Amino acid sequence: MTSAASQSLPGINWQASNPERFLDLKSKLSALLGDRYSDTQTVREHHSEDEAYHSGLPDHVAFPASTNEVSEIVRLCAEHDCPVMAWGAGTSLEGNALAVAGGLCLDLSQMHDVVEVHAEDLTVAVQAGLCREELNLELRHTGLFFPIDPGANATLGGMAATRASGTNAIKYGTMRQNVLRCTVVLPDGSVIETGTRAPKSAAGYDLTALFVGSEGTLGIITELTLRLHPIPETAASIMCIFPTLEGAVETVILAIQTSLDPARIELMDEAMMAAINSFEKADYPVSPTLAVEFHGPPAAVAEQMERFQELVEGEGGTVSRTATKSEERSALWKARHNALYATRSLQQGKKLLITDVCVPISRLADCIMATREDIDSSGILGTIAGHVGDGNFHAFLLFDPDVPAELETVEALHQRMGARAIEMGGTCTGEHGIGVGKQDLLRQEAGGSTQTMLAIKRALDPDGVLNPGKIFAQTNG
Amino acid sequence: MTSAASQSLPGINWQASNPERFLDLKSKLSALLGDRYSDTQTVREHHSEDEAYHSGLPDHVAFPASTNEVSEIVRLCAEHDCPVMAWGAGTSLEGNALAVAGGLCLDLSQMHDVVEVHAEDLTVAVQAGLCREELNLELRHTGLFFPIDPGANATLGGMAATRASGTNAIKYGTMRQNVLRCTVVLPDGSVIETGTRAPKSAAGYDLTALFVGSEGTLGIITELTLRLHPIPETAASIMCIFPTLEGAVETVILAIQTSLDPARIELMDEAMMAAINSFEKADYPVSPTLAVEFHGPPAAVAEQMERFQELVEGEGGTVSRTATKSEERSALWKARHNALYATRSLQQGKKLLITDVCVPISRLADCIMATREDIDSSGILGTIAGHVGDGNFHAFLLFDPDVPAELETVEALHQRMGARAIEMGGTCTGEHGIGVGKQDLLRQEAGGSTQTMLAIKRALDPDGVLNPGKIFAQTNG
Repeated sequence: MTSAASQSLPGINWQASNPERFLDLKSKLSALLGDRYSDTQTVREHHSEDEAYHSGLPDHVAFPASTNEVSEIVRLCAEHDCPVMAWGAGTSLEGNALAVAGGLCLDLSQMHDVVEVHAEDLTVAVQAGLCREELNLELRHTGLFFPIDPGANATLGGMAATRASGTNAIKYGTMRQNVLRCTVVLPDGSVIETGTRAPKSAAGYDLTALFVGSEGTLGIITELTLRLHPIPETAASIMCIFPTLEGAVETVILAIQTSLDPARIELMDEAMMAAINSFEKADYPVSPTLAVEFHGPPAAVAEQMERFQELVEGEGGTVSRTATKSEERSALWKARHNALYATRSLQQGKKLLITDVCVPISRLADCIMATREDIDSSGILGTIAGHVGDGNFHAFLLFDPDVPAELETVEALHQRMGARAIEMGGTCTGEHGIGVGKQDLLRQEAGGSTQTMLAIKRALDPDGVLNPGKIFAQTNG
Repeated sequence: MTSAASQSLPGINWQASNPERFLDLKSKLSALLGDRYSDTQTVREHHSEDEAYHSGLPDHVAFPASTNEVSEIVRLCAEHDCPVMAWGAGTSLEGNALAVAGGLCLDLSQMHDVVEVHAEDLTVAVQAGLCREELNLELRHTGLFFPIDPGANATLGGMAATRASGTNAIKYGTMRQNVLRCTVVLPDGSVIETGTRAPKSAAGYDLTALFVGSEGTLGIITELTLRLHPIPETAASIMCIFPTLEGAVETVILAIQTSLDPARIELMDEAMMAAINSFEKADYPVSPTLAVEFHGPPAAVAEQMERFQELVEGEGGTVSRTATKSEERSALWKARHNALYATRSLQQGKKLLITDVCVPISRLADCIMATREDIDSSGILGTIAGHVGDGNFHAFLLFDPDVPAELETVEALHQRMGARAIEMGGTCTGEHGIGVGKQDLLRQEAGGSTQTMLAIKRALDPDGVLNPGKIFAQTNG
């Protein structure tokens, strides 16, 4: 909590400023929740960090079991003017769920039921605390799956709240396209339903799209209906290496601009492949590498594999592996899945700052090359990987949060990379959200529309109960 | 203007209530726009009806040529408390753009430029008044196209404002998925940009998704960046007839539930085929009919055509035509494109009320059968067609707006069909929007979330300048 990288707002802590309110709220929440309420140091610390380098210690933690309980908790917190931060699996990367000003952490992990599978409609209703891997386990006998895969085994509510995407988004879309309906607890404790189970709608304002990506600042998503997809009849993966990063990126651009329809298309740079070799005790060629997968009926997949290989060869690349059986494909994808952990293992004890820019695909090669140069000239150890079919990639930057100069260097890199993406017509965040870490970049990117966002925040949460200090440091500015 | 079906708010007309403000505003707008401003009866009447049965006469009409002019016009109107209704091609079906309380019609048809084609990024920036057919003409040498096709040659701004979709949405999505970025004039005349040119983003609230589908009640979209798609290398269409409506719908459901990926999948019922025969002097079998199209590389398309034909035969259907060449496909699709006009031609002088329900696909057969029974027992002449792959279909109901009993019958049918869709977990509008015609149904469908929509409306347009009386009759309730 005392590291230089802590993002707790200095001098602001709800409990310290409201000792009597805290005791009153504590007694009411204890009466409501019994042992599903805690203010012990251990439980609070378990909810004080996410997977990157931000931190913030909540004053207390509640574990609701139903939408009704969430409603009652939020109503009580609003009465006591106590901030409420929804918490899923703690796998955010921008401090999105952290208690930067104290208050109540609302841990939804006990709300992990599959509410209703509508296999015939390709939809499923789930509670917000269900994790995506558990959902796919539950679905395994239906012939359907939920494709959004941000890497971490995040909760589906958390994925909705940060508008997550990941490796499969190029074919299946992000959470924006795959959430049909939400049950939302508003800041006064009232409960609304947004959207319907129909595949599309033009009925009034698109509230589902508004709550998806709002990072728990407008309402708490407690239940959601998701689109499912048929498990592909055939899937084939291919790994290819390139003499240059440009060749790899150019191959991606050509694949997207022609009619190829990859399910995933992922880039790892040389530094990342070296990290993975070291982490997995493997001997992948240390070259810019693409991992690609195609889904569909057999003839369509075969046709696409063949065309993709032609593109690879045209750019001077070489196919290093192909896989069609499920276990072989998992083995091929293991490298990409280990990207974060492999980088972290390069320097034990260091933290990661992970950038998340997304640019128009015509600017992708320039953007990645400039990012690599930035890292190389900074003295920081960093790797690059990303969902390049979407124009989205990440620099994984290692630093010691207790060494101010290192923190300063990575934060400067972060700002510089975000600003470059914005200048190229892109965004500072493709899938991680704003949280506490990208608020300056949001203002650069969104300009005057930030005021429109703030007007919505003030209209729906006039007292600033939900997740204060996120997306916007202040909501009255 | 005096028909029983007029939706002008009784007793409310802006000019009549504000004669001096009108004269002052008129002189300022004339000075700004010259002959691109008019308050002649002819021009006003040209902007008083859409393609269905609603009407509303604006007090005056402006034809801006730029976002700056729109900004200045909206600012002047806000100062004079004069309602502003954005107008595209006048092809709405729910009175979405009509001046139900008088005020200024903002005709964007002179803002019809393609601003910038980014072929390599598969995006294009256009002014809001450009029509979709003209866009595709402009794109014809790029190998790309904009797939959203609501039937009418609507403006792209109007399509965004009503969250339009149409025949291709099953593969390419609706306007929700295909608008990346908007330039929006807010009710006070200020101008914001929402979104970026990157394929995805997690940067703050999804304002693009909020303005798309807001029917001009929150801001005026003056420019927008759209996703483009490669023109498919191969396309193949197929028309099939079925002994029963259930067989046709069951085929659609099976196609969606397996891995088939149609670009369009459209149903026409017996009554519609009879209307088309009469309109086109054709001799299509008068049976429930599906028209389907597949897009993609040759092997993938051939594989899908073969599988689809198996499904058709399994449900007792017969393939009546197939087409692969562009002209042959256009001929095959002519019947579907003429659905509205064919129905209208059955009873000259009558108007059309077109329903727009969308339900989970498992309820589609029940919903269509019950709709057909409703029509048959009502004494009203009506046909059915729709984008059934999305669960979305339309009943085209003919009535004489000057015969109160007929109007009452079709409006009762409309309410009943909307309520049924909502009860089935669906929506009262898949793609036409709420406008003035579906406000009661919106309240049934959205329940308490209507209050959240109203809170947003009041926050962004506190004085109710933009398109009053649409989506919500009152915004203070």
